[in-house]
Amino acid sequence: MRQRFATPCVNWMVIRMPEVPAPFATSVSEWMRSGGPSDDVVVSTRVRLARNLVEYPFTPVASPEAGKEVRDAVAQATCEIGRVSSEGYAVYFLDEMDAVDQWILVEKHLASPHLLDQRACAAVVLDDAETVSIMVNEEDHLRIQCLFPGFDMDAAWERADSVDDHLSRVLDYAFDGRYGYLTACPSNLGTGLRGSVMLHLPGLVLSGQMEQIMSGLHKVGAVVRGVYGEGSAAEGNLFQVSNRVSLGVTEADILYNLSAVATELINRERSAREALFNADQYALEDRVYRSYGILANARKMSSEEALGLLSMVRLGSDLGILTPKVRATFAELMVRMRRASLQRILEETLDAEHRDIRRASMIRERIQQAS
Amino acid sequence: MRQRFATPCVNWMVIRMPEVPAPFATSVSEWMRSGGPSDDVVVSTRVRLARNLVEYPFTPVASPEAGKEVRDAVAQATCEIGRVSSEGYAVYFLDEMDAVDQWILVEKHLASPHLLDQRACAAVVLDDAETVSIMVNEEDHLRIQCLFPGFDMDAAWERADSVDDHLSRVLDYAFDGRYGYLTACPSNLGTGLRGSVMLHLPGLVLSGQMEQIMSGLHKVGAVVRGVYGEGSAAEGNLFQVSNRVSLGVTEADILYNLSAVATELINRERSAREALFNADQYALEDRVYRSYGILANARKMSSEEALGLLSMVRLGSDLGILTPKVRATFAELMVRMRRASLQRILEETLDAEHRDIRRASMIRERIQQAS
Repeated sequence: MRQRFATPCVNWMVIRMPEVPAPFATSVSEWMRSGGPSDDVVVSTRVRLARNLVEYPFTPVASPEAGKEVRDAVAQATCEIGRVSSEGYAVYFLDEMDAVDQWILVEKHLASPHLLDQRACAAVVLDDAETVSIMVNEEDHLRIQCLFPGFDMDAAWERADSVDDHLSRVLDYAFDGRYGYLTACPSNLGTGLRGSVMLHLPGLVLSGQMEQIMSGLHKVGAVVRGVYGEGSAAEGNLFQVSNRVSLGVTEADILYNLSAVATELINRERSAREALFNADQYALEDRVYRSYGILANARKMSSEEALGLLSMVRLGSDLGILTPKVRATFAELMVRMRRASLQRILEETLDAEHRDIRRASMIRERIQQAS
Repeated sequence: MRQRFATPCVNWMVIRMPEVPAPFATSVSEWMRSGGPSDDVVVSTRVRLARNLVEYPFTPVASPEAGKEVRDAVAQATCEIGRVSSEGYAVYFLDEMDAVDQWILVEKHLASPHLLDQRACAAVVLDDAETVSIMVNEEDHLRIQCLFPGFDMDAAWERADSVDDHLSRVLDYAFDGRYGYLTACPSNLGTGLRGSVMLHLPGLVLSGQMEQIMSGLHKVGAVVRGVYGEGSAAEGNLFQVSNRVSLGVTEADILYNLSAVATELINRERSAREALFNADQYALEDRVYRSYGILANARKMSSEEALGLLSMVRLGSDLGILTPKVRATFAELMVRMRRASLQRILEETLDAEHRDIRRASMIRERIQQAS
């Protein structure tokens, strides 16, 4: 089930371990650890590059055989990066993983739900820190993603650019002098670049400013979505802001504009929090402490409720009402309490009610440890 | 403001101490301590005797002068009990107390709200343990009340009977050979006796049985009310059950019938709790622990919310989910968190918002201490 590429490897090989869960199933990705610039508001920053191989049709129209050839080519290329950069990479073929591990990739933001629809020839390449995740045969042949904690566009861009450079020496990218990188969907044409920032905006939500801000962001070419991608609700007051256009602008411009938008949101969120605190300190403290009290004591909890309460506890930690250690659990719990991750941690298949019971128990322990 | 009668006293005297709150304003009445028979369901048992002096008109139609003479006569008689029984009694004149102390009497169930309307010539006599409270010039000249923790009809009756015996040697009661004790309202005629049991019935409420039970109780001559008397809502799942008729039956019959009704309710409540626990242990534990978590953490709380949460915490303690120490705080907190008691403890006049803040803070401390 797992294909591991690490230095020094010359040819890639398949190690089948169907009884053992994938390492990523229980590990903590680098982005899930707290820290990073402006981490009072920003959970993580991602840069994604869409690339396609010139000699194959785009994934949506490729034959299964072509898809598998693309997958093998990327796997081999990844081995090359491992060899030249001393970084350890592992390649996971989706058709050799069970459904729980597949969903954990989505829950950890290492793969999109759409990739799971392509499982016959899809793969994910991960580095050891899970900072780099390359989706193979999602909408494009390659989607190189780099995910960093906090607001760190430069780090994410540099890493993505470096991985892209390494791969471009081995793989023959579809590139046009006029249009730039060719992609399956025209919206990704050009740079193939999408930056996105995951922001925690409880202040703007509680003060009722989000709706207006979202329509304003649309006008400046930014897209705002819930945290599990397009169409997902903004659970836990989490919003993903990204650029809409990737054609006709340089990478630097895209990232500069997106950074400017994110900086503006960070400042507005900080002002909103200050205003809420000044307007009614007790009401805000009450809300934070009640959320904490419920998380630390409940015996049954849905993930929607947990995310909402964790959002308040994180806010309380950011405002100095609760200890900063509580905040450090936020991103990790946000992932771990999801259905597949919970199931893998417990090594049990649980019905909805028992998931709610075990979710509450896991959150309770972590929250009490951190207090 | 305070008239204290303690052994040995021969004549009663008035000690005016308007700057000092009454001792009962911050003390814990005996009934507020936990314990007593069947205290998993019963908070307290009360026996009340209505008595009137033969030489004065009933309070509702008496002149202010007559009212004051009645008050003085009862005060003097109380002094007699103190002298012969070695018990300490204090007499409090309502017109010499501030409004906060007056309301504390009501919150502690030592006086009725109706007594406060008669404040010009009303008084309350209390023993040191606050087990005996005699309302003077409520609807009747005397209402001798004895309040014990748990389900203890015998103790309450014996004490009330003994106080009544002592007083009857000094005071000339209005008594008719055919009708028995004469009272201002015909509903109290005869024995002048009303027993009442304060029951905590969360099991019957949560399982939706209360409505049916209440109509059943009506048919067997019992009255069910909320905990702060007629017309008050059943906050905190607390119900006061008492006899409707006091004429044409003996004291023994009244108390026997009421005890039978209370015993039936106790058994039904215990069954309901067991059924709830067996039907969904996790749901019940979740509810108990969430209530605990909110009480132990909130920064603002209304008394209605607090009573509801305390009810769940007491239930959890009764079922062994939480430590029994938590239950011991129930009756005390139930009184202390009320408006006047809170104000007196803090020695501050607070607006509604600040009461909610200080209430949360007081409950939090007590609940955490008890855990």
